[in-house]
Amino acid sequence: MKNSFGTSVTITLFGESHGPAVGAVLDGMAPGIAVDGEYIAHRLRLRAPRGDISTPRREKDAFSILSGVFKGRTTGSPICVVIPNEDVDSGDYERGRALARPGHADYTAFEKYHGFEDHRGGGHFSGRVTAALVAAGAIALTALRERGIRVGTHIARCGGVDDRPFSDPDADIEALEHLSFAALDPEAGERMRRAISAAAADGDSVGGILETAVTGLPAGVGEPWFDTLEGSLAHMLFSVPGIKGVQFGGGFDLADARGSEYNDEMYFEDGIVRTRTNNNGGVNGGISNGMPVTFRCAVKPTPSIFKTQATVDLVRGEDATVTLKGRHDPAIIHRVRAVTDCAAALVLCDALALRYGTDWLGGGKCAAY
Amino acid sequence: MKNSFGTSVTITLFGESHGPAVGAVLDGMAPGIAVDGEYIAHRLRLRAPRGDISTPRREKDAFSILSGVFKGRTTGSPICVVIPNEDVDSGDYERGRALARPGHADYTAFEKYHGFEDHRGGGHFSGRVTAALVAAGAIALTALRERGIRVGTHIARCGGVDDRPFSDPDADIEALEHLSFAALDPEAGERMRRAISAAAADGDSVGGILETAVTGLPAGVGEPWFDTLEGSLAHMLFSVPGIKGVQFGGGFDLADARGSEYNDEMYFEDGIVRTRTNNNGGVNGGISNGMPVTFRCAVKPTPSIFKTQATVDLVRGEDATVTLKGRHDPAIIHRVRAVTDCAAALVLCDALALRYGTDWLGGGKCAAY
Amino acid sequence: MKNSFGTSVTITLFGESHGPAVGAVLDGMAPGIAVDGEYIAHRLRLRAPRGDISTPRREKDAFSILSGVFKGRTTGSPICVVIPNEDVDSGDYERGRALARPGHADYTAFEKYHGFEDHRGGGHFSGRVTAALVAAGAIALTALRERGIRVGTHIARCGGVDDRPFSDPDADIEALEHLSFAALDPEAGERMRRAISAAAADGDSVGGILETAVTGLPAGVGEPWFDTLEGSLAHMLFSVPGIKGVQFGGGFDLADARGSEYNDEMYFEDGIVRTRTNNNGGVNGGISNGMPVTFRCAVKPTPSIFKTQATVDLVRGEDATVTLKGRHDPAIIHRVRAVTDCAAALVLCDALALRYGTDWLGGGKCAAY
Amino acid sequence: MKNSFGTSVTITLFGESHGPAVGAVLDGMAPGIAVDGEYIAHRLRLRAPRGDISTPRREKDAFSILSGVFKGRTTGSPICVVIPNEDVDSGDYERGRALARPGHADYTAFEKYHGFEDHRGGGHFSGRVTAALVAAGAIALTALRERGIRVGTHIARCGGVDDRPFSDPDADIEALEHLSFAALDPEAGERMRRAISAAAADGDSVGGILETAVTGLPAGVGEPWFDTLEGSLAHMLFSVPGIKGVQFGGGFDLADARGSEYNDEMYFEDGIVRTRTNNNGGVNGGISNGMPVTFRCAVKPTPSIFKTQATVDLVRGEDATVTLKGRHDPAIIHRVRAVTDCAAALVLCDALALRYGTDWLGGGKCAAY
Repeated sequence: MKNSFGTSVTITLFGESHGPAVGAVLDGMAPGIAVDGEYIAHRLRLRAPRGDISTPRREKDAFSILSGVFKGRTTGSPICVVIPNEDVDSGDYERGRALARPGHADYTAFEKYHGFEDHRGGGHFSGRVTAALVAAGAIALTALRERGIRVGTHIARCGGVDDRPFSDPDADIEALEHLSFAALDPEAGERMRRAISAAAADGDSVGGILETAVTGLPAGVGEPWFDTLEGSLAHMLFSVPGIKGVQFGGGFDLADARGSEYNDEMYFEDGIVRTRTNNNGGVNGGISNGMPVTFRCAVKPTPSIFKTQATVDLVRGEDATVTLKGRHDPAIIHRVRAVTDCAAALVLCDALALRYGTDWLGGGKCAAY
Repeated sequence: MKNSFGTSVTITLFGESHGPAVGAVLDGMAPGIAVDGEYIAHRLRLRAPRGDISTPRREKDAFSILSGVFKGRTTGSPICVVIPNEDVDSGDYERGRALARPGHADYTAFEKYHGFEDHRGGGHFSGRVTAALVAAGAIALTALRERGIRVGTHIARCGGVDDRPFSDPDADIEALEHLSFAALDPEAGERMRRAISAAAADGDSVGGILETAVTGLPAGVGEPWFDTLEGSLAHMLFSVPGIKGVQFGGGFDLADARGSEYNDEMYFEDGIVRTRTNNNGGVNGGISNGMPVTFRCAVKPTPSIFKTQATVDLVRGEDATVTLKGRHDPAIIHRVRAVTDCAAALVLCDALALRYGTDWLGGGKCAAY
Repeated sequence: MKNSFGTSVTITLFGESHGPAVGAVLDGMAPGIAVDGEYIAHRLRLRAPRGDISTPRREKDAFSILSGVFKGRTTGSPICVVIPNEDVDSGDYERGRALARPGHADYTAFEKYHGFEDHRGGGHFSGRVTAALVAAGAIALTALRERGIRVGTHIARCGGVDDRPFSDPDADIEALEHLSFAALDPEAGERMRRAISAAAADGDSVGGILETAVTGLPAGVGEPWFDTLEGSLAHMLFSVPGIKGVQFGGGFDLADARGSEYNDEMYFEDGIVRTRTNNNGGVNGGISNGMPVTFRCAVKPTPSIFKTQATVDLVRGEDATVTLKGRHDPAIIHRVRAVTDCAAALVLCDALALRYGTDWLGGGKCAAY
Repeated sequence: MKNSFGTSVTITLFGESHGPAVGAVLDGMAPGIAVDGEYIAHRLRLRAPRGDISTPRREKDAFSILSGVFKGRTTGSPICVVIPNEDVDSGDYERGRALARPGHADYTAFEKYHGFEDHRGGGHFSGRVTAALVAAGAIALTALRERGIRVGTHIARCGGVDDRPFSDPDADIEALEHLSFAALDPEAGERMRRAISAAAADGDSVGGILETAVTGLPAGVGEPWFDTLEGSLAHMLFSVPGIKGVQFGGGFDLADARGSEYNDEMYFEDGIVRTRTNNNGGVNGGISNGMPVTFRCAVKPTPSIFKTQATVDLVRGEDATVTLKGRHDPAIIHRVRAVTDCAAALVLCDALALRYGTDWLGGGKCAAY
């Protein structure tokens, strides 16, 4: 499926950066889930550009829910969320259309869509589309929380600066909900912001590494082939613009470890199986083991930089240079972190609905009928 | 989908390590592709355990094709390949059934399947099932090669030893087809093998990093959401037992890079767009850009080690220790490399069939009708 | 998949009868297809209630395209069409909520969604949602026509009156595009309308049989198992409210025929294989044979009638009677005919895109880039 | 998906009539379902050719289960069933390869597979493949029965003879399990058999109408769009060779009814909602209403007849005649009835697993672990 993802709970994305709107259809959510407009707005704000380390484009992100919600709760029918595009300035983009921006999808879009693509602002490839993913994902996060499942992401590394690791994941996730810049260690966060500003001052950009933890997921969720929890999450996560790597638990970091170091020894705690380490990131054989699911995403530096770069002119078919103008982020990692949570939440809702049925995440019987 | 993957070209896996057989149904392949039994056997040998750095279990991997091939060519109907299990010794496994092996899927299988799973030798979670993936993938590799698309994997790092990087990907891929231990630098390979033997001597195991290159893939293949080339490949790759991380191009390695370093500048070469670097791993916006697609997989150390480990007894519901017996690999990375090629080939066939139609990989009109 | 259909070309429906809007996301259409707003509006008018044989609810059906169309052509990205709901009067519905209307989905919706469903006007089950299907399908019809493939439906039987059969399918389909009441024989149409009016005068309703022809479809489209052309079309068609039967070619009508009568003898005409009869409805073994694809749909009488009926009170859990008020159609068959065309067109676009690739229905290279 | 069907419970078919085997992979079945080899064999016998009204080809239908069953119960992993082909006589087929048999898929297969198809005995299009569907479906039927859900089919009409309708569906279904010729009225059955024999004596064939009832299905199963119970069942059923029409409840039979006749009035019986009539065939708005699900399938007369027919020579590209030799059924309807049950059972298992979760059909916790 192209712009749809999921089996029992599905998300379909539409929209272009400079078209009328971006939006999402979230289908398969159980009936009776409370839909909290404030929380959706909060999640959209976490994703929105902010301050001097983001594009000056102001995204108001006013959203409308066109369907699937009745009297404040999900009905079980598809939920369409639409976020109109405002503060759109396409002029800068139109002028340089023929010049493919390095690191962007301009050239690959041209090859795939033969020039019919809406190229303005990255069109359908734009990170702007993740606003719709976030709006839908916020509903998924709410539903999961009601079941004791929480998802949170911090900036594990940016500009050469490491954040502290998760220590108490539940408390850390709660704290992250309220952080506009998602570093668990405030001082590390300050240094990351300075690194971003320094890159911006050079007309350059930075990337980094995001780390996500999922707590409260029951053991037994996922499949051995092919819908492993890891594979499903990675499939979704690689859609998020800029993500070029996904690893679970030790991942690449423990490439040199031996089995005796990597294996997570097990024990019972209050009748629940737990592991002393979590190098497998809460997943064995593709299936959750009841420990926190932890993964890291490598986010490449924003490709929009203000340095002159060698490129090609797609119309003239010749080499050229390009110097970007317009409004661009020197870093997106502090915004993407709000997207990974939502993306992961959607995948988890799908896996849970498959395992426990379509009503599991829902609100039981309607009391007010 | 559980044990099926793909949209237009699909693979379905079945079988358990100690059941009658493992197998695969490969569906959607174009009609008229030559099916070369010798090449399938060759690929199965690349995956098979070998020498002193593998389990002494000898897998003959004699395969039968039950359907979908007629007069040596694909018919367009589903191809069922079956590989009977031989040299099966279940005794060791039966004794320790209740003891979940750390790092394995024993506990998660128990949670998911409630004790009905065939636990012997890892059952359906076993790496043994990848033999069927390889048999099907070998057909996919053949079809791709006819279209000028090649896939090859080397062991980029193992036991703390780095292989040399791909230099001339086409030539390197050709060389890798004939290497039983897939290090491009023979001396690095020798050191890796010694590291594996050293771990084995300690009753321990090692992991490492695989690197794959795909050459000849046309630009324009993949989707922006959600079936990005990266996401589809990662989804498949995370099914392969032991893979805990997947990254494209620079991935985690360039987490500290700036945009001006990461962006791949573009130019024309003989009318074809190329990039000077390939930090995006041949993919922009989820779509191939015509450069080699490169990715790395983190392979965790084999969890089967011969040291006593703390674990849980699933029947008695109490803490326990486990000491493995039986035949186990001190490393699987040199075998997994033959799996990643096949896994990637299947994903590519699917993406190509979607883009260019079901006949694109095929044999035109049957001359001998 | 719940509210999505298709593999390469997909349609996702959302919306409730009395919510803010109904809409559709059409994904996977090739880039470069001209999108003709006038034709979409025309198709919506063919579906809209009209005159004295329809509900007095006036559906203006003003639609907006939120994405996927740029400079009048498809971009290849998902196309979201939204049709706001206007002239909504929910009062009548609210009063009788607890009383399940016989023949409607009130009770099954209650069982499935536990009372959280938006019940007003049938909610997500309403025929109103087919307006979105028609808007998307109109784009599909346009794309098919560019490739010489046409779809048309007439009312084969209604109120005990038979229309004449298709004689020259291409000409008949062209004529049907311009008929607001789709009887090929005007006199039969007049008698059908009188039968509808007579039922309406009795507070009752009628159903009937629709017959559809598809011309110009190349031979070789469809699959033997399970995505037969018949199965895919039927899957889609049974979604259309009121359709309770689908048959291809002779179907039930030739249940008593012998093989020598049913078999379609073949011959060459200008190098093309044709059949003398078309009892197989243009499909053999699930795959198109180049003859017109013909199918019939049984449309049950509209369940909304103005007679007092025995039913159940879902809140009190006791037997009750219900007498409908409000605005209802005494027949929908003359409106559904515009839905079946669009529904079939979407299925055909999907099958064609799978067979010939994602660009096949599209506009080649963009001349104006 | 081509040869796969289903979302949570999936079936994949493979094999050709004269290849090594036909088979199926049944995936997503809950763990712990008892697999009764005797019942599978019984179901295969119901489908097998028998007596003087079937092809003399003797199908022993010995099956092997290669995976997914352990200690007599499903494991939750994919179940591969293989049925080797025996008593294969391809000689007759080879001689006439170029001559497309009217009513068969020879020509459409040629168009789709370009001559690479295994044409012998209909290849992958053969009704022979339904043996694999039956083997898998027998497991599904067993699982459903444990949950109080039963499926049965009788020959409602054949050779112009009507069977009596279902009167007590549960008892009728039980009786049908033991009838080798599935007429509820023995005398009608005898007349049908005579009609088949008479057609056979003429070198001709007959078709007819099958009627299926499903009892015990809970209310609330199915989706409004697009996976209606009707659409999903029809999608599957149209795969069965020879089926050209599917209708639910009144279907085409009540095309002339008015709403007041068609609507099913509702009442409570022992706290359960029931309807006085069942013209909607147990489905409203695509979702089960707790009444028996009833549908009819039109089965066309077997296309293999022994009369000389006009056709085309696909190699020479010219008109020709064909006179079949070999072993063919003068009717298949008495065999197809065993296929529709199994086909429906697979669809129901899928819908139930989606609604209630993957374990719902299963065996709880393994007692013998």
